[in-house]
Amino acid sequence: MILLFLLIDHFKTRVKMSSNRAYYILKFFVFQSRIWQFLRVLINWRCVKLDKDFINLAARSLVWPVCLVGAIENEKHNIMTVAWITQISANPLQLVISIDKSRYTHNMISETGEFMVSILSSEQKEIAAVCGSRSGRNVDKIKQLKIETVPSTVVKVPRLAGCLANMECKVVAQYPAGGRTLFVGEVVAADVGKENLKPMIMYRGKYIG
Amino acid sequence: MILLFLLIDHFKTRVKMSSNRAYYILKFFVFQSRIWQFLRVLINWRCVKLDKDFINLAARSLVWPVCLVGAIENEKHNIMTVAWITQISANPLQLVISIDKSRYTHNMISETGEFMVSILSSEQKEIAAVCGSRSGRNVDKIKQLKIETVPSTVVKVPRLAGCLANMECKVVAQYPAGGRTLFVGEVVAADVGKENLKPMIMYRGKYIG
Repeated sequence: MILLFLLIDHFKTRVKMSSNRAYYILKFFVFQSRIWQFLRVLINWRCVKLDKDFINLAARSLVWPVCLVGAIENEKHNIMTVAWITQISANPLQLVISIDKSRYTHNMISETGEFMVSILSSEQKEIAAVCGSRSGRNVDKIKQLKIETVPSTVVKVPRLAGCLANMECKVVAQYPAGGRTLFVGEVVAADVGKENLKPMIMYRGKYIG
Repeated sequence: MILLFLLIDHFKTRVKMSSNRAYYILKFFVFQSRIWQFLRVLINWRCVKLDKDFINLAARSLVWPVCLVGAIENEKHNIMTVAWITQISANPLQLVISIDKSRYTHNMISETGEFMVSILSSEQKEIAAVCGSRSGRNVDKIKQLKIETVPSTVVKVPRLAGCLANMECKVVAQYPAGGRTLFVGEVVAADVGKENLKPMIMYRGKYIG
């Protein structure tokens, strides 16, 4: 800024223009520098936002299976939609699921050490939508959606009829992940649904199967 | 067995048959019990095998994305095929990948704390097959497959051209999982490929996309 003043003073004395005119030139420079500052903030904000958008879009480019995760506690059976799930080991066969700490199912799993993974078929989109948006604290989703349950062989949580597959899991480890918990479950028993069922697949926020 | 002897003695005295005949009846019972024992073992083995087959088939009913995980150490860049991957948190955006401890890439990631996830498109099946079956200890897979690399913005590991998306990851946690390690990576930068690309999808051991 001081440099700018000196420059204008020098300019003023050299061309002998009026002080008024020099003042406007100064004002213009100051204004321009403010515009630049504003633009720089705007560009930075836009870049950060674009970076985040790219990161989000890239992560959503991983295809997701769509599952229901079930838990039971004090005879209360609840299910929720989970898409962040993957196998992590073949022998013993283990899965990992990521569940938000605020979810009703979270405490049920961490207290009982058991959960059920029921993989949804492409025809069960309504179930996925309802179980992903409503909390089991207020609604009995299984009754509301008239989902048929089948007794399990090892864990207490029942299996769900009509799914692609059911996997009975026992929790073998829990790890923190921000506001979420990673539950590592060992599959202790399973069944597989009818052969003609096709998997529900999510890709970039849309169902492609 | 003693009960069987007593029974045969009783039978023998009652019907006054020859000792020889009783011996053969006894032998038949013993033989039959051995057959039963053998059958029981066989049935049990078959049931356990069927259970395991069901568990495997159920787990493979989760659709898998197919990715290349890249790492770099001492200027040596290696990639391997990974399908056991999922997002686990949205903010910060984190992924988890499961990698066998014996793999060449495992130590590279655990020592440098960085890796690249390049999601494959449905047209890159040859790359997936080669990078999933050969070790980078013996072959330079990137040279062999003539994969073009692009410089990264945050991590050292380069991005791969022509993929669905590239995610630059920094390791924030490592957890043991049997003979494998779960690497939790925070995505620090990303890019997304051409819009017309479709994801490679694995379902029950086959490519369906």
